[in-house]
Amino acid sequence: MSYTLKDLAAQLDAAFTGDGDIVIDSAAPIESARAGQITFLSNPAYKKYLETTKAAVIVVSPNMTIDHCATIVSETPYLTFSGIIDLLYPPTYGENWGIHPAAIIADSAVIPAKAEIGPHVVIEDEAAIGEGTVIKAGSFIGKKTVIGKNSRIAPNVTLMHECKIGNNVIIHGGAVIGSDGFGFAPTEPGQEYKKIRQVGWVEIDDNVEIGANVTIDRGAIGPTVIERGVKIDNLVMIAHNVRVGENSIIVAQVGISGSTKLGKSVILAGQAGLAGHLEIGDGAIVAAQAGVAKSLEGGKVYTGSPTRPLMETRRIDAALRHLPELLKRVSALEKKPKDE
Amino acid sequence: MSYTLKDLAAQLDAAFTGDGDIVIDSAAPIESARAGQITFLSNPAYKKYLETTKAAVIVVSPNMTIDHCATIVSETPYLTFSGIIDLLYPPTYGENWGIHPAAIIADSAVIPAKAEIGPHVVIEDEAAIGEGTVIKAGSFIGKKTVIGKNSRIAPNVTLMHECKIGNNVIIHGGAVIGSDGFGFAPTEPGQEYKKIRQVGWVEIDDNVEIGANVTIDRGAIGPTVIERGVKIDNLVMIAHNVRVGENSIIVAQVGISGSTKLGKSVILAGQAGLAGHLEIGDGAIVAAQAGVAKSLEGGKVYTGSPTRPLMETRRIDAALRHLPELLKRVSALEKKPKDE
Amino acid sequence: MSYTLKDLAAQLDAAFTGDGDIVIDSAAPIESARAGQITFLSNPAYKKYLETTKAAVIVVSPNMTIDHCATIVSETPYLTFSGIIDLLYPPTYGENWGIHPAAIIADSAVIPAKAEIGPHVVIEDEAAIGEGTVIKAGSFIGKKTVIGKNSRIAPNVTLMHECKIGNNVIIHGGAVIGSDGFGFAPTEPGQEYKKIRQVGWVEIDDNVEIGANVTIDRGAIGPTVIERGVKIDNLVMIAHNVRVGENSIIVAQVGISGSTKLGKSVILAGQAGLAGHLEIGDGAIVAAQAGVAKSLEGGKVYTGSPTRPLMETRRIDAALRHLPELLKRVSALEKKPKDE
Repeated sequence: MSYTLKDLAAQLDAAFTGDGDIVIDSAAPIESARAGQITFLSNPAYKKYLETTKAAVIVVSPNMTIDHCATIVSETPYLTFSGIIDLLYPPTYGENWGIHPAAIIADSAVIPAKAEIGPHVVIEDEAAIGEGTVIKAGSFIGKKTVIGKNSRIAPNVTLMHECKIGNNVIIHGGAVIGSDGFGFAPTEPGQEYKKIRQVGWVEIDDNVEIGANVTIDRGAIGPTVIERGVKIDNLVMIAHNVRVGENSIIVAQVGISGSTKLGKSVILAGQAGLAGHLEIGDGAIVAAQAGVAKSLEGGKVYTGSPTRPLMETRRIDAALRHLPELLKRVSALEKKPKDE
Repeated sequence: MSYTLKDLAAQLDAAFTGDGDIVIDSAAPIESARAGQITFLSNPAYKKYLETTKAAVIVVSPNMTIDHCATIVSETPYLTFSGIIDLLYPPTYGENWGIHPAAIIADSAVIPAKAEIGPHVVIEDEAAIGEGTVIKAGSFIGKKTVIGKNSRIAPNVTLMHECKIGNNVIIHGGAVIGSDGFGFAPTEPGQEYKKIRQVGWVEIDDNVEIGANVTIDRGAIGPTVIERGVKIDNLVMIAHNVRVGENSIIVAQVGISGSTKLGKSVILAGQAGLAGHLEIGDGAIVAAQAGVAKSLEGGKVYTGSPTRPLMETRRIDAALRHLPELLKRVSALEKKPKDE
Repeated sequence: MSYTLKDLAAQLDAAFTGDGDIVIDSAAPIESARAGQITFLSNPAYKKYLETTKAAVIVVSPNMTIDHCATIVSETPYLTFSGIIDLLYPPTYGENWGIHPAAIIADSAVIPAKAEIGPHVVIEDEAAIGEGTVIKAGSFIGKKTVIGKNSRIAPNVTLMHECKIGNNVIIHGGAVIGSDGFGFAPTEPGQEYKKIRQVGWVEIDDNVEIGANVTIDRGAIGPTVIERGVKIDNLVMIAHNVRVGENSIIVAQVGISGSTKLGKSVILAGQAGLAGHLEIGDGAIVAAQAGVAKSLEGGKVYTGSPTRPLMETRRIDAALRHLPELLKRVSALEKKPKDE
């Protein structure tokens, strides 16, 4: 798709500067954009490219003055740029309603006419798929699992039995939802563990996105719950009976142990790990690689392993550099003759 | 399935209190259980729910007195509860012996009549599957790979060629067993590495459970070995020529580098990482996110990155909080006039 | 395959000691090798097995004297051993050129006669596969994705649309290439995020190897790039718009956040994590579990989280052991009577 600058601005209800008749056909990063392309600036680290970019148009915030190329001006440049992407690159899924002949669908499964079921998909007994939902090649939908409307399941996804997936949910390739939780009872010391059969399920509410190769285990008994609007990055592990509160953000490779409950709008940065049976308050932010061993109050930033409040960690990290020398300084003080 | 309390207790050879005619039809977590449901208490953090739970029956240890609802009394409440789950929720796999017509099976593969091979499974030349084993949709069994009896392979699992999987093994969705180890020889500095072809295999002994999206690489030469009774959680990485000793527990997102050997009943908590060519003694416990760079004696607890004995790490973590202020205190001591 | 020692040495242009007529049929680790097997010694930790190994032949470097068995002598024993593996174990892929009848290939896809497309593979519109390339069972190749010559795609791999894969590329089982980057724009505080559609792609250059269950996200706009000769271990996460410079090594479970650029021949050890928008210089080495929050100069070794130069981390780690006691020593100094 291509648009003139003035049409693009009009569709987004945004102001623009420069020649409104410039034609834009695609978007590109600020450092590699060429004529006919639009880009945006939100990360200050990229300001260095402002003078040299060959982009035709830049989306900027109102406080920036750009002379050498056209602009679209927005209080929320990232959000506006996202709207531009939606216009320039209309989504291509949902063009092929129907069931591919190489899919295997149980007689008792419910599939509406307006759903796309790709080749080699398997849908087991009593599963139900909502209208407008796309399930790509090789994905597996277990017995009695229900998926809502307008959801998109990428190739090679595994949704085990009796799970509940909402509307507008996106699940990326290789994710496994509803695998058994890690539950074993010790028998005698040094002897084999006995498996606790995991008879719960997974509930994923509307507007959730789940990254590639994520694993979300079913509850031991009862559900593992991902509330509305949660976004989960690749290779995250969510254990049995965890609850993730709405609009939380979970970055790649995070691990959350069993029965831990996250409040609303929590952010867990990459590779953070949480012990089991914790409560994390609304709006808490846990830094990358942090190790959370205790419940956390909401609205604060935590770092380190084990976690501490951000400012405390920073002060410790700054002081650590002086520690080897501090040992020597204390030894020197101790050696100072008493009668000096 | 449903049982009366007295029948349930009789089947488990356990004592009970309360009305033996209560009918139990399912299990639920203590905080959400309702009439007709059974729950259990083993984690002390959940004692707060004891008074308010609506469960019909609670499984408790003998030293607890519960008045307001019926109980099943057990020295090992978690183990007893596990037996109750097995009764209330009889397993549903193994109901469909036979090979699905959409599976592709090599002529030279051996499949017994009593095995379930799901749709889109591929079984290559000279592979052999044991009696009572279930292989779900989309899984791949490479050339000459052998699987024992009564094992369960979830959907979309990849078992590469020449691997040996024992009896009663469970492998969850998306796991990849027998991929190439990460072996490369440097040629010249700054030049491309040469791949060392990985011609070993993977051996997984009886009663092992392997989580979703786990990866276990084949040996470079010789085997990578997971001994009897080992339980591995999701997204764990086990490199080439590792040996994991029997009844060890490996929690989610742990990584074990090449040729490291674990003794028996080792526990590696979540996100721990082990360097290569180490020996970890029987019964060693490595805490979450620990980084193990040296071999460890058995029977001890290790924490931190690099790891230290547990008590040492605790003392250091407690002292760290005082470090920034300690720097100031030492500066003050240094400035104290000599003649004071 | 089997060889006499003198033939093996001749083919590799290497010197040997001992009886040139010994027949070698396989390779094994030094601690378990038996008669008729060849092994090698490069890791000094395994010297303890030199006296007791039952191997027929050991590949060693010139400075080692071995009396009790035959040797092949090489300046680069690991590289030479790799050549021996190639001779003893000829590769078995590429024996079955052609398209399996259970693969689903779009009419507009281009597949040469000399390519192996396994059962249940799906290749979408306008995708193109190079000569000599093998795609194993259950893998998915999205629209317009192009794969070069002599590449090997293991089972159950997901290559999303519009990606570019070079020649001699190896991708192991369960890897997901070209999934959406993790891009969301905040709307109002505490409200739902808006998805930024990810319209870029992934470029993987020649001679790259990608481990099992790795995820590499497509660029938000523009590409995510893995340059020539890069080797990536299992369960690694590479976010949108990252660039990994040629011949870099990325060990298992590493995570690289969005838009970070690695130079050439960078080494990231296991479980290291890198923040977004960083630049890592040529030849930088990042230790296992390190957390990189700032750009790094090339040619140096970094450890810890947050990272510090190697020697600084070592000094701090050594000093930390004394910290609890240091607190007491400073308190003692402070209490020393002034008039003493």
